[in-house]
Formats: sequence, structure tokens, C-alpha cells
Amino acid sequence: MHPLLEKKGFILDVDGVIGRGEKPIPPAVEAVNRLISMGKKVVFVSNNSTRSRKIYMQRFKEFGVEVTEDQMFLTTYVTATYIKQNYGKSKVFTTGEPGLVEELKLAGHEIVDYDEAEILVVGSNRQISFEILTKALRMCLDRDKIYVATNPDKIFPSEDGPVPGTGMIIGALYWMTDRMPDCICGKPGKVIMQQALDHLQLKADEVVVVGDQIDVDVLAGKNIGAPTLLVLSGVTTKQNLSRMIEKFKVKPDYVLDDLSQLFSA
Amino acid sequence: MHPLLEKKGFILDVDGVIGRGEKPIPPAVEAVNRLISMGKKVVFVSNNSTRSRKIYMQRFKEFGVEVTEDQMFLTTYVTATYIKQNYGKSKVFTTGEPGLVEELKLAGHEIVDYDEAEILVVGSNRQISFEILTKALRMCLDRDKIYVATNPDKIFPSEDGPVPGTGMIIGALYWMTDRMPDCICGKPGKVIMQQALDHLQLKADEVVVVGDQIDVDVLAGKNIGAPTLLVLSGVTTKQNLSRMIEKFKVKPDYVLDDLSQLFSA
Repeated sequence: MHPLLEKKGFILDVDGVIGRGEKPIPPAVEAVNRLISMGKKVVFVSNNSTRSRKIYMQRFKEFGVEVTEDQMFLTTYVTATYIKQNYGKSKVFTTGEPGLVEELKLAGHEIVDYDEAEILVVGSNRQISFEILTKALRMCLDRDKIYVATNPDKIFPSEDGPVPGTGMIIGALYWMTDRMPDCICGKPGKVIMQQALDHLQLKADEVVVVGDQIDVDVLAGKNIGAPTLLVLSGVTTKQNLSRMIEKFKVKPDYVLDDLSQLFSA
Repeated sequence: MHPLLEKKGFILDVDGVIGRGEKPIPPAVEAVNRLISMGKKVVFVSNNSTRSRKIYMQRFKEFGVEVTEDQMFLTTYVTATYIKQNYGKSKVFTTGEPGLVEELKLAGHEIVDYDEAEILVVGSNRQISFEILTKALRMCLDRDKIYVATNPDKIFPSEDGPVPGTGMIIGALYWMTDRMPDCICGKPGKVIMQQALDHLQLKADEVVVVGDQIDVDVLAGKNIGAPTLLVLSGVTTKQNLSRMIEKFKVKPDYVLDDLSQLFSA
């Protein structure tokens, strides 16, 4: 039996672990369901900053994974929760998409225009505009405003080719104002991971953090002191593995071809 | 007589020197016309990256300044000329506005989509979109593509408040790809200044560079070795002058309240 099967909890990345874009990875999906049936506590952590849990549930259903919304930690939800925990229900202006707006409202925040907002929430937006960027710029220039970002990803590898991630907006604002977010909630940061641990009611050494990216998932696991499993079913491959480890100076505790190998290795 | 009146050529900034936004500064306009009637050679250099010379001429007419299009060095025109001089008539993709497109076409370049383009031309665009930024990103990731930007300005002080300048796009691309433009044509760079000197057929010590910003205009003058005149009719004021000099470590050769003081001082 694989030693990681002794762990009580599994904190799993989504893209590159149980699916690739909209397509599932069937053996990995089967492995997740097997973990659940064994009584393991499972949560998913994703840097997705454009979808609400409600929207994302549809993908999980199509994949055939049996989870509920409260097992899903998307940065839309995580950011809304972070703000509520640290600043209470707030007046926020966001650069983000309807999925982020939905989670902010569900957490009790009020969506307002930039000049009334206490908190700037930066998330990716495929409808980004000069007007939205101008408003974000003006909030950044006001050092009394709190500035929170969903996730740091600079480039997202879409099926069509590379597209800008939330990091594009963070970078643009940094270039113009010399200001970085007061908090970036997504991986490899601790906020998303701590929310996952709190939900599991487990300590870091009782879980394993699973993902396909060394600088995102493995680093996120290291940052909370949890054991890490890198799967080679996404961004990292057998071919680039040693180069990636060298580049990011981070080494996963375990490496498997995909999640199903937990049961065959 | 002011010693600068011995110079043969005047390289003048526009905003903050002869006008503020769409409003002229009448004594400065009168001074420009007096210089012209004295037989001085006058050109205007502006980091404006959204207007063609044709569009900009309208503003000069409204101001009451008697110049022709060939005396106007806007970064739209300057960038189009720079590309023609260095790479010949080229296939370009631009993030910019119709004013930039107009000058690129007038210089003989072909406007194409990003996957056919040889050169990426970054200029500000109040209609900037995720799609345009995605295309610019993909060109930047291809190190075989040439990357030229109109001007480096990060924030533009519009009448309504600060808005992003061309620098926002440069910063976003740099954050995502670690790549800066191969050339930034506007002030304080040399390209725009050299084109102005070439047109005047004068050497740097035969002209004076006039502007309202130390880090833009005065630095541009210093960069070509020309004497510089700072006017306090724009961004720099009596109140912030010494702080600005300290901040940018650049000192203008002369300082006047406004351009008309050339004749009264």
C-alpha cells in the first residue's frame, strides 16, 4: 500500500490532476472516488478566479466526482471568505467576473463602485476594460484602501494557447503604482491552504497536498508544512521534471504518473 | 534678452507648455508665434500615443498656434517612422487606437493580426480588451518578434483623474513575460528627439528643449545633450520644483514660470 494512503486528508488540485480543461482523467477520477469511499477526507483547491463553486460543481458532475460545494476551495470563494474573516462584511470593488461577484455577494459583501469601496478585489476578467483598470488604478493609488487579489498566476495555458491570468492585472497595477496586493489568496499562498485545513479539521502533517505544478501546488504544500505529491498528468512531465525542480528549487515528497498510481504502486 | 533666444531651434512639449488638456495657455501660445515670426525653427514633441498628426492639428488650430503637420512629432508618427527607418515597411500588430493605426498605415506599414505580424507595436488604447492583451502576450512570448512601444508613461493625469498610460500595457507584458520593448520611442528616449533634430537640421547645442516635466522633457533634452528649459505651467510647480529635482536627480538649465517669460525676463 502506498504510504500516503495512511493520511487522513487529501487536498487536491483540479486542473492537471483529475481533468484537463473540460475533459476528465478517468483513472484519476476513479481514484478520488475510491479515496472518498475509503473514508478519506477530500477537498479541492483551485486558483480558478472566474467561477463560483455553483458554476464549478457542473464540471465535477460531468467528471463524475462525488463532492459537494463545501469541499471546493476556488479562489473566488476563498477570497470572499478571507475578506469576511479579516475585515467583516465589506464594500468591495472588483475587477473580476460574475463568478467572483457571486461569491463576494454570498459572503455578504456589497459590490459598489470604486469611489465607495473599502476593498479592491483583483481577479481575472475576460471582459477587462480600460474603465475597470482605471478604477483599480485609482484605488491602488489610495493607500487607505485594502487591496486583495484572488491568485498570482501570470499566464494561463488555455486550450487555444496562453492567455493572461490574474497576474496580468497585478503586474499592471504594480508597474503603475509600485503597489502589490496586501494579500494574494490563491496558491502557493497560505490563505487557500489554511481554509482547506480548517474545513478538514486536520493538521498539516495529517494531509497530503496533490497537484501538477511544482511552483504552485507543491510550493503551497511546503508553505503549510504538509507532505506533497506531484502528479505528472498536467503541466509537469517526465521530460521536464528535473528541470522544473531545478528551476523552482522545490522538491515534491512523492511523484506519481497520475493519481490512480496511489493504488497500483 | 533671454540667452535662450540666441538658439536657432526650439523643441517644445505640448501639454503643460502651450496648453492644459484642451485649453490653451494664451501667453505661451503668443510666445510660440513670436518665436516663429523671429525666424526660429520650432517643432513640437509629444508622448501622445493615441492621436495622429492630422487629428492633433485641430487642437493646434484651436490654440491659435501656426504650425504644419511636419512640425509635430507625436509618438504615433515617431513610432511609425522609427519602424520604417529600421525595419522597412512592415507587417505590424498594434494594441493602439485609430490615431496610431493611421500613422502606421501612412508610413506604409500593413496592419495585420498578431499571428501574421513581424512587429508588435504597443500604444495606449481606451478600448483595450482581454483579446488585444492576449495577442500582445503571445507576440511577446515569441522572441523572434520585434516589440516596439510608443511611450513609457505609466499614468496619465486626465482632467477627470489619473488614467493608465501606455506604460500599463508595457508593465503587464513585462510582468507576464519578463520582456521589455526593444525600443520605446517617446520621451525621455532619444528616438523622438533625434527625429526632431533631423527635421530641424540642427545640432543639439543649437536648440533648447522645453517642457513641464523633469523626468520626461528635461531628461529627454539631457539625453541628447541639449540645453533644457523647464516651465512651471504644468506638472512641475514652484512648490514641488526642488522635490522633483531631488527625486529625479536631473536639473534643468533654465526655469521659467511659463514660456512667455522668455520675452519678459
